[in-house]
Amino acid sequence: MVTMSEPTKILLDESEMPRRWYNVVADLPSPPPPVLHPGTLQPVGPDDLAPLFPMDLILQEVTTDRYVDIPEDVLDVYRLWRPSPLYRAHRLEKALGTPAKIFYKYEGVSPAGSHKPNTAVPQAYYNKEAGVRRLTTETGAGQWGTALAFACAQYGLDCEVWQVRASYDQKPYRKIMIETFGGVVHPSPSELTAAGRAVLAKDPDSPGSLGIAISEAVEVAAQNPDTNYALGSVLNHVLLHQTVIGEECLAQFAKVGLAPDLIVGCTGGGSNFGGLAFPFLREKLAGRMDVTIRAVEPASCPSLTKGVYAYDFGDTAGMTPLMKMHTLGHDFIPDPIHAGGLRYHGMSPLLSHIYELGLIDAVAKTQRECFEAGVRFARTEGIVPAPEPTHALAACIEEALSCKETGEQKVILTALCGHGHLDLTAYAAYLEGTLVDHEYSAEVTGLPKVPA
Amino acid sequence: MVTMSEPTKILLDESEMPRRWYNVVADLPSPPPPVLHPGTLQPVGPDDLAPLFPMDLILQEVTTDRYVDIPEDVLDVYRLWRPSPLYRAHRLEKALGTPAKIFYKYEGVSPAGSHKPNTAVPQAYYNKEAGVRRLTTETGAGQWGTALAFACAQYGLDCEVWQVRASYDQKPYRKIMIETFGGVVHPSPSELTAAGRAVLAKDPDSPGSLGIAISEAVEVAAQNPDTNYALGSVLNHVLLHQTVIGEECLAQFAKVGLAPDLIVGCTGGGSNFGGLAFPFLREKLAGRMDVTIRAVEPASCPSLTKGVYAYDFGDTAGMTPLMKMHTLGHDFIPDPIHAGGLRYHGMSPLLSHIYELGLIDAVAKTQRECFEAGVRFARTEGIVPAPEPTHALAACIEEALSCKETGEQKVILTALCGHGHLDLTAYAAYLEGTLVDHEYSAEVTGLPKVPA
Repeated sequence: MVTMSEPTKILLDESEMPRRWYNVVADLPSPPPPVLHPGTLQPVGPDDLAPLFPMDLILQEVTTDRYVDIPEDVLDVYRLWRPSPLYRAHRLEKALGTPAKIFYKYEGVSPAGSHKPNTAVPQAYYNKEAGVRRLTTETGAGQWGTALAFACAQYGLDCEVWQVRASYDQKPYRKIMIETFGGVVHPSPSELTAAGRAVLAKDPDSPGSLGIAISEAVEVAAQNPDTNYALGSVLNHVLLHQTVIGEECLAQFAKVGLAPDLIVGCTGGGSNFGGLAFPFLREKLAGRMDVTIRAVEPASCPSLTKGVYAYDFGDTAGMTPLMKMHTLGHDFIPDPIHAGGLRYHGMSPLLSHIYELGLIDAVAKTQRECFEAGVRFARTEGIVPAPEPTHALAACIEEALSCKETGEQKVILTALCGHGHLDLTAYAAYLEGTLVDHEYSAEVTGLPKVPA
Repeated sequence: MVTMSEPTKILLDESEMPRRWYNVVADLPSPPPPVLHPGTLQPVGPDDLAPLFPMDLILQEVTTDRYVDIPEDVLDVYRLWRPSPLYRAHRLEKALGTPAKIFYKYEGVSPAGSHKPNTAVPQAYYNKEAGVRRLTTETGAGQWGTALAFACAQYGLDCEVWQVRASYDQKPYRKIMIETFGGVVHPSPSELTAAGRAVLAKDPDSPGSLGIAISEAVEVAAQNPDTNYALGSVLNHVLLHQTVIGEECLAQFAKVGLAPDLIVGCTGGGSNFGGLAFPFLREKLAGRMDVTIRAVEPASCPSLTKGVYAYDFGDTAGMTPLMKMHTLGHDFIPDPIHAGGLRYHGMSPLLSHIYELGLIDAVAKTQRECFEAGVRFARTEGIVPAPEPTHALAACIEEALSCKETGEQKVILTALCGHGHLDLTAYAAYLEGTLVDHEYSAEVTGLPKVPA
């Protein structure tokens, strides 16, 4: 029997749900570099973004206020799954024989099965308030498209998702889930846009890419006054919305009188990691908490550990504003690893800035080590994790085993940002031994020229 | 905005988790008829069942004690997901425009995604305590195989699952999830058993059936002293274990000072329905609660509403003891509806007895009405339900719309026994308009002759 001093699940009442998002920019020793217009190389203003986003979100993108109130109507939808549980991993600890205390904050209880609805819901809400009738977006692994379709259903908005062709063909369940929530899914490249037709004219069998799918969704939004575009990671307002995760977690640790010594989370665009870490970073910056915060990325797409810190485009085609971030180059095509949510050439500019300030560290993990951790976790804790958070679990287990050597009773907090119910074919590949590790070995090329 | 007097989720602490299972047999006005040996037609004794089950479970099968203590080690695993949430369906109510108050008890938070682990865990525990090394079972839709594989992983038992060939080929995700938890899956019919080989000799391309898969799993258990067999529904001890659902629900309603006027749950073998309903039935029999309890079954497999109440075999091949139950005949082959968990020719003998006593009523629903309810539920409440509980949701929505006509503020409790993440192809068929309704039109034949 597993003996426990803390309960397995540390829960909050709905009345204890955070009522405002936290903006870490207000507490940083220096502000992040501005986003630049790709033509003028001058900082972009609100008007530059207005064709794609409602003004409320544009203002959140640039605000320096420490807190932003969460609208009541958004809180009302959050209540369907929030506050999410903080688990003590008693059974994993026992299996590892570690004196470390392992906690995981589980976002898989949401309608989409990940943290993505935390920002999809407010994005849909502010667009609805601005009179928008339809949202477009891209999706790769499918989590973001599912979250936005669910959010649009709550506010009576139409939702159109361009899903990367390869993923559209390989992950039919994600498409069905988006349709069940009322969304419309197009394989990308599609005949519906100039961007898509141009790609298909050159290669009718194109498997697509996230970059192409972004171009298609942005094109439709830019050309239709009643239509806006929504992005699921990278941007400041997305990370802002995700801070409900960390705020809840702080309240949950307070309930058991503990604080983490180490936080590990996976990073693709950075929203799950930032959402958990930023409220803890506030406590660290204020001297109220001594905590190490560690980003874990795939060895095949290591933007923080092997990228350069430079201005680059957010998409492959080079249509977006220029953002200063850790990047592998916007023309870098990541290997087809199973953690689709981590296949992005760049890192959130805000998170990149924080990394440059030395406030977080970063490591990279290979696929097989990650899936080994995922299977170990499933068999002890009962949750099959999405491929993305297995990266955090691998780093967590590594640290817990190190504590076994040293005898340290470290408190480790892991971001378990989603379940893997719709990613099971990746587990099959791991269990059959056909999963291949890809190491990054490219050089960063093709960066746009920006004067210092 | 949705205005609410109750919170969206009514939660219990782990300290409020029930510590004993409730045995409804103790409170019924008459005992259920005995189970008979198919050869002697005499009531079966514990020794007849000993080759397949550990004595603790055999004693639970026949006990007349009102309560059975839940072992601490089982409680410890239950804590991974229990107590499960009771939801108030504010957003569904608003979409329907009903004055009814709709609640749903959600079992999809478990490791397998359904109520099945509530009994898989104690079954694995008692077998481990009895020195058993391996459990065998059959699985159709895959929920039960997943639950047993998870439970066996908790106690270090091997788990072998015979999955109906058609389901094995059509639902690869279920097989992968079982393997991720460490289970071994065989398509049934298999070359591993005499029963399987006999079927394959006649038809090498046999799609299999639940009856054949049961025969294979039972054969392996009966022939190996270190191996037992586990069943996921129908039997008394299975329904006993599931009563944690209803006991939690009673405590949750007490927190908000309400009680249900109507309980609706889907019935296949009866374990989800019995688990929720029996504790409420205790309150009703004691005169402490006035509640209507309604079973909802598929129109294509309507054992309660169109079957006969008679002694019949539990499996298609006629190998099991004879049980008095509502049956469509053990040779009845249900149409291939998507709610695989409801495709069973008979109903739990205990639930059948209770139905005969007039303590519950029953209705049948067609597939399309059920999926329409499931999609409506997903778009408002954010959870994509498994095909099985969409039957309960269809009956719930029907009642809520009737309340809209009459103005009644009925409190309706729905058993939402699992999510549909691994059943999304059924939603695709519904959304594409290719789902076909099957009505039952057979006559019950082939019942064994048992003197009155």
